[in-house]
Amino acid sequence: MNFKVPRGTQDILPSESWKWQQVESIIREVCDMYRYKEIRTPIFEQTEVFLRTVGDTTDIVTKEMYTFTDRGNRSMTLRPEGTAPVVRSFVENKMFGYPDQPVKLYYQGPMFRYERQQAGRYRQFVQFGVEAIGSADPAIDVEVISLAMEVYKRAGLKDIKLVLNSLGDIESRNAHKNALVAHFTPSIGEFCKDCQSRLEKNPLRILDCKVDHKNPLMATAPSLTDYLNEESKTYFDQVKSYLDDVGIGYELDPNLVRGLDYYNHTAFEIMSTSDGFGAITTLCGGGRYNGLAEELGGPAAPGIGFGMSIERLLLAMDAEGKSFKQESELDVYIVTLDTPAHRKGFKLLNEFRSAGIRADMDYMDRKMKAQMKSADRFNAKLVIVIGEDEVNGNVVQLKNMGDGSQEQVSDENIIETIKEQLK
Amino acid sequence: MNFKVPRGTQDILPSESWKWQQVESIIREVCDMYRYKEIRTPIFEQTEVFLRTVGDTTDIVTKEMYTFTDRGNRSMTLRPEGTAPVVRSFVENKMFGYPDQPVKLYYQGPMFRYERQQAGRYRQFVQFGVEAIGSADPAIDVEVISLAMEVYKRAGLKDIKLVLNSLGDIESRNAHKNALVAHFTPSIGEFCKDCQSRLEKNPLRILDCKVDHKNPLMATAPSLTDYLNEESKTYFDQVKSYLDDVGIGYELDPNLVRGLDYYNHTAFEIMSTSDGFGAITTLCGGGRYNGLAEELGGPAAPGIGFGMSIERLLLAMDAEGKSFKQESELDVYIVTLDTPAHRKGFKLLNEFRSAGIRADMDYMDRKMKAQMKSADRFNAKLVIVIGEDEVNGNVVQLKNMGDGSQEQVSDENIIETIKEQLK
Repeated sequence: MNFKVPRGTQDILPSESWKWQQVESIIREVCDMYRYKEIRTPIFEQTEVFLRTVGDTTDIVTKEMYTFTDRGNRSMTLRPEGTAPVVRSFVENKMFGYPDQPVKLYYQGPMFRYERQQAGRYRQFVQFGVEAIGSADPAIDVEVISLAMEVYKRAGLKDIKLVLNSLGDIESRNAHKNALVAHFTPSIGEFCKDCQSRLEKNPLRILDCKVDHKNPLMATAPSLTDYLNEESKTYFDQVKSYLDDVGIGYELDPNLVRGLDYYNHTAFEIMSTSDGFGAITTLCGGGRYNGLAEELGGPAAPGIGFGMSIERLLLAMDAEGKSFKQESELDVYIVTLDTPAHRKGFKLLNEFRSAGIRADMDYMDRKMKAQMKSADRFNAKLVIVIGEDEVNGNVVQLKNMGDGSQEQVSDENIIETIKEQLK
Repeated sequence: MNFKVPRGTQDILPSESWKWQQVESIIREVCDMYRYKEIRTPIFEQTEVFLRTVGDTTDIVTKEMYTFTDRGNRSMTLRPEGTAPVVRSFVENKMFGYPDQPVKLYYQGPMFRYERQQAGRYRQFVQFGVEAIGSADPAIDVEVISLAMEVYKRAGLKDIKLVLNSLGDIESRNAHKNALVAHFTPSIGEFCKDCQSRLEKNPLRILDCKVDHKNPLMATAPSLTDYLNEESKTYFDQVKSYLDDVGIGYELDPNLVRGLDYYNHTAFEIMSTSDGFGAITTLCGGGRYNGLAEELGGPAAPGIGFGMSIERLLLAMDAEGKSFKQESELDVYIVTLDTPAHRKGFKLLNEFRSAGIRADMDYMDRKMKAQMKSADRFNAKLVIVIGEDEVNGNVVQLKNMGDGSQEQVSDENIIETIKEQLK
């Protein structure tokens, strides 16, 4: 019987996993520079956590969640996004009481959405995200954006742009909501069923509709920007000033609304502008979510964060022709010519590794030539050859693959000699 | 409404996550020494993958799996262990055709078992594991064991022991199976229902029973060791010789059977012998699984591997009083005294981080004293103070927290000066 990886998921094989490791080490370094600390929440949460936060009219909740009942008859959902779990943890662990606010967190790991399959979209995908919870200073919005840009910069990406909008505070959003209802109600019959139900529950979602996006009423819909109250406008202006101060350019897009209900004020996406890139150009999306901590049972704790797709970061690197450098795999490969040599080689192998030398040998009882080919493929810097004479003489033959030099070395001096040659 | 982390799972908060990162970097280093490459399989697999391999009479499959039906009506299971998915991927991706055999893989990530809650057991737990697939050389069994021991060594653990057994090949196992059936059948009525069903399907599992482990028939049950055929004995002897060669001590335990059906020949556990450790002393378990690749639709590809609990590694470190060293969090903390100073400080902050300096500042509009306390808590090496004079004069005050020295530095020289002082 043959088995395949579940549809919409992928195995990351050794030929690719080293690139993921490189991205992760960039992420870790940048977060360290910005003093964001890692948090790891479980793969699944109580379903209610997402219903209350992501929003029960969003595509994610209505169509895309992996929800199941556990053996204790509780409804659980594989996390479709990272913010709600982190804020749940912030509240549950009373991080609002930590002496240093805002609390700055980052996460990376798999997320799950049962989406239609297409290039660059997976049902299990990996997101890196940060959350700064506890401050309403517009500078922290820019810190968060700047952190994302720094990750892309270190990955070598140049063809990216920041797209920015303000969703305003609750007063502004309600004024806009009323205007949207007035705008769409007369012709709502022309729209899809989802939009019809959105009209009552969350008319802003209509602007996000993938079915009706060409309806002319979309283009003439009242813009949120025109309904921002003074406080929201001032906040947004400060965010823009800080962006100017730190030299991060941006494009304003009044239609940028993000696919989750909990956002307000600053909303942003970072997009690839590379020609080689596919149809989905958003690499990273985020925004402010004042009120989310209260929604999850906590005290007021204004927050901002983003989620960044690692798959798309790697695609964007490909599109721009950027790549990581893969290191040589091996310091020493041990070639053995018979069984006693194999046994001696294995003993040396263990000593090398304990001494921090990257080493390997043959376990397939192959001929010398085949073993030498492995050494080549692994790009080994040194090769050790052990035959009958070497076993009897307590020596090995050491070959330097860089300069082609070869010498006989005694067993007791071999580690020292290897370390010398690797310098 | 208040939400809690799902029962049996945990949030790993910043106060702990840095330790996980340290363990992961040890794992990455050791795997690099041993030329094991990372593979990442999805969080869930088709349920059948585990039914066919882990075994349909095991506790894992009968009681502990998180199984659900996805929106495409397929039965999926959150992976309860790492070996079956890796071998599934080995077969699906035709790794048996790679020029270098055995293929050496490692993984780390969450696994899921719906177990009764107890100390040191989580329903979501993290395993690091390696798999060497494609070689039946007894030396590779020892390589795998040696790799696990090296990880523990680098984590500082001393109170550990290796426990070893051979389960023999299929012929040996069948002979032993028949002897077990003969031994238990007359009195099977005394045993639990599970054991009664195990008698027919898999009598070896009876020895593993948590309910009947005190029944006197357990102690007198025929030992697998007495039923090993010549080939199995020779193989086991060679494994033991290689262990002797590389100086890894071991204890033989003929009752060590491991809780998964796919094991044969070498089976091992690494256990904590520390006084401070809890009831569950197994830190790592593994063994050989010749035949597993065929079971998953591939050609013959003998394999061996282990799974190691990260939670228990950290518990064992605690029990032995070993700990990682946490680095200073911050190079520079910027204290600002008014709004223009905050704006200048934020600009500098961004420049510092871009230059690879770990820096932070206040986003809560706090008084100087509170900001200085944050700098202390972050263990900042340097503190910069900016007030009205510093904004007007294009300078900052730089204080070295190590030697207490303080100087005024111009804006254009600040990065250079910081780097100098951090040396």
